[in-house]
Amino acid sequence: MIHAVIMAGGIGSRFWPRSRRTSPKQFLSIVGQNTLIQATVARLQGIIPVENIHVVTNERYVETTRSQLPAVPSENILAEPVSRNTAPCITYAAFHIHRKDPDATMVVLPADHVIADVSRFHETLKVGIAKSAEEQSLVTIGIEPTYPATGYGYIQFDPEDRDPKGNLSALFVRTFAEKPNLETAERFLDSGDFLWNSGMFIWRTDSILSAVQQHIPDVYDSFAWMDGAEENLDKLSESFSSCPGISIDYGVMERADKVYVVPGSFDWSDVGDWKAVYDLSEKGKEGNAIEGQAIVHDASRCLISAQDRLVAVVGLNDIVVVDTEDALLVCHKNATQRIKNVVDYLYTQRLDDYV
Amino acid sequence: MIHAVIMAGGIGSRFWPRSRRTSPKQFLSIVGQNTLIQATVARLQGIIPVENIHVVTNERYVETTRSQLPAVPSENILAEPVSRNTAPCITYAAFHIHRKDPDATMVVLPADHVIADVSRFHETLKVGIAKSAEEQSLVTIGIEPTYPATGYGYIQFDPEDRDPKGNLSALFVRTFAEKPNLETAERFLDSGDFLWNSGMFIWRTDSILSAVQQHIPDVYDSFAWMDGAEENLDKLSESFSSCPGISIDYGVMERADKVYVVPGSFDWSDVGDWKAVYDLSEKGKEGNAIEGQAIVHDASRCLISAQDRLVAVVGLNDIVVVDTEDALLVCHKNATQRIKNVVDYLYTQRLDDYV
Repeated sequence: MIHAVIMAGGIGSRFWPRSRRTSPKQFLSIVGQNTLIQATVARLQGIIPVENIHVVTNERYVETTRSQLPAVPSENILAEPVSRNTAPCITYAAFHIHRKDPDATMVVLPADHVIADVSRFHETLKVGIAKSAEEQSLVTIGIEPTYPATGYGYIQFDPEDRDPKGNLSALFVRTFAEKPNLETAERFLDSGDFLWNSGMFIWRTDSILSAVQQHIPDVYDSFAWMDGAEENLDKLSESFSSCPGISIDYGVMERADKVYVVPGSFDWSDVGDWKAVYDLSEKGKEGNAIEGQAIVHDASRCLISAQDRLVAVVGLNDIVVVDTEDALLVCHKNATQRIKNVVDYLYTQRLDDYV
Repeated sequence: MIHAVIMAGGIGSRFWPRSRRTSPKQFLSIVGQNTLIQATVARLQGIIPVENIHVVTNERYVETTRSQLPAVPSENILAEPVSRNTAPCITYAAFHIHRKDPDATMVVLPADHVIADVSRFHETLKVGIAKSAEEQSLVTIGIEPTYPATGYGYIQFDPEDRDPKGNLSALFVRTFAEKPNLETAERFLDSGDFLWNSGMFIWRTDSILSAVQQHIPDVYDSFAWMDGAEENLDKLSESFSSCPGISIDYGVMERADKVYVVPGSFDWSDVGDWKAVYDLSEKGKEGNAIEGQAIVHDASRCLISAQDRLVAVVGLNDIVVVDTEDALLVCHKNATQRIKNVVDYLYTQRLDDYV
């Protein structure tokens, strides 16, 4: 059967002051009505039954996850005692699902991305699922790049594999590339055989488990006890604390032989900062994206997120105003990456109430 | 005796959202600890006894005035049933004081200006008070212009009257000029015989009353009943409602013969908008003026007035952020004059709670 594993452990600080330790990005409705994780689950409707949807998140977010995803069986919400990057998270989920369904195929999805065209997304998943049936094959979803992004990793595929008729197909992966500088990103874009690395994966649980065993045996060994055994929270937290923190890309995908990428041609964003939220938002006149009660006078291309108060913006362009009960952010749209520094500063100043 | 009349009827909307109908500019401490009207009274210490200080304000501000100025005798707080510009206000106060003290000299001061050098201010007043002793002479205080301001009216004096030794003296006034355009303002500045019109006046009550009678008789007639009579609130509100709204500059000063100006060389500001507040504020590093709890990251020359919440400003220069319980303003420092439009809009939208 097809299962989904939604990775929801992030504690993104780039959406301060809306996002806090208690309510990170994936649990906020910063784009549309649903929260990002609710949208991620809704997006699977018609392709993966909800009883097969799993969420891996940090212990402290289990309650929030349950309340936001009432349809997801509560036993499918897996708690990480500590966060240890994607490889341990995926290995844990793979053992958990494999135990219930030895014939399982799992689709791994980040909880906090935005995808516009659901039917195209489904087509892409189906092609990936079909490919993942091949013995030992590991499939990732790539995104056709639309500009020379420096904020994403890239995946280079074998152009020979492109279907001459242009049909969607899984392409053999040559290399994974780290986030490039602009010059390199432009070369990637021009070459035509690079895709953005979306962090979405498809594989059979037996395929990924044997790949983990082969390429990152210490990660495998940390969770090996789960093979056929009952749940055991003490052993589980021992597994995570003993396990090295390593990403599945670095630990497995860059080393395995049979790695394929399906080029997704749907609109996709990892919603990395408030600027990305502005880009995804509906704009009114003067290109202002306004949530809540706001008055703009001689202001354009602003993102305004008001809550309980009236916000007036006068004589300013390209700024972000995010108002919350106890904290307010006013930021230039091109400086939203620096909000992390503010959060870091709040920690150093022991202003923890605000983070 | 010397009396002071502080005009405090204004409902300035240029300091929204801090200033509201219920708390206009003169009752706010937007510069320093004292409110502007408290500073205006404190500034007279040593030159005018507090029992001779009078305040004319709108009925709705009488209570606020009493509570902010406990030392001023409560019977010296004169209420205007309706606001009718400066001529009726001054005529009312002149009759009121003249009745108590037929030999009175009155110093008329706006409640919402900032003056840095108090001793120079006192010298200026003394020269003006001396000049006002001359029969029928009307004295105004001018300010030596420091730049070609287009936001102030100007007073042209007779350069012949300048004391060759540079001693402070009262100079004969040739003309009053409306707020000029930049070109004209530069000409005024270069000419050397123009001063800013500060709206401060000094005259004997009998001098101003006869001047009002001569030049704006209908204003005089509206209040003539007060001559020797007891207070009478009904007659008073009849006086104001029947009286035309006209300024003392236009009604009297531009028409009278014996008008003099004393060039004040003290630092003065009418604190016209938030930009003026920034200019008057103490700046920290990067030239930011911060009140309350704020974090600035890669931001310079900003005015931040926080109240109960944390304000973070990132990647922005020359902006004004004013945070209040129910409304927030984010404005470019060069657009602060346009805040009036926001307040007007709030009225048209019936959002009266915010004004």
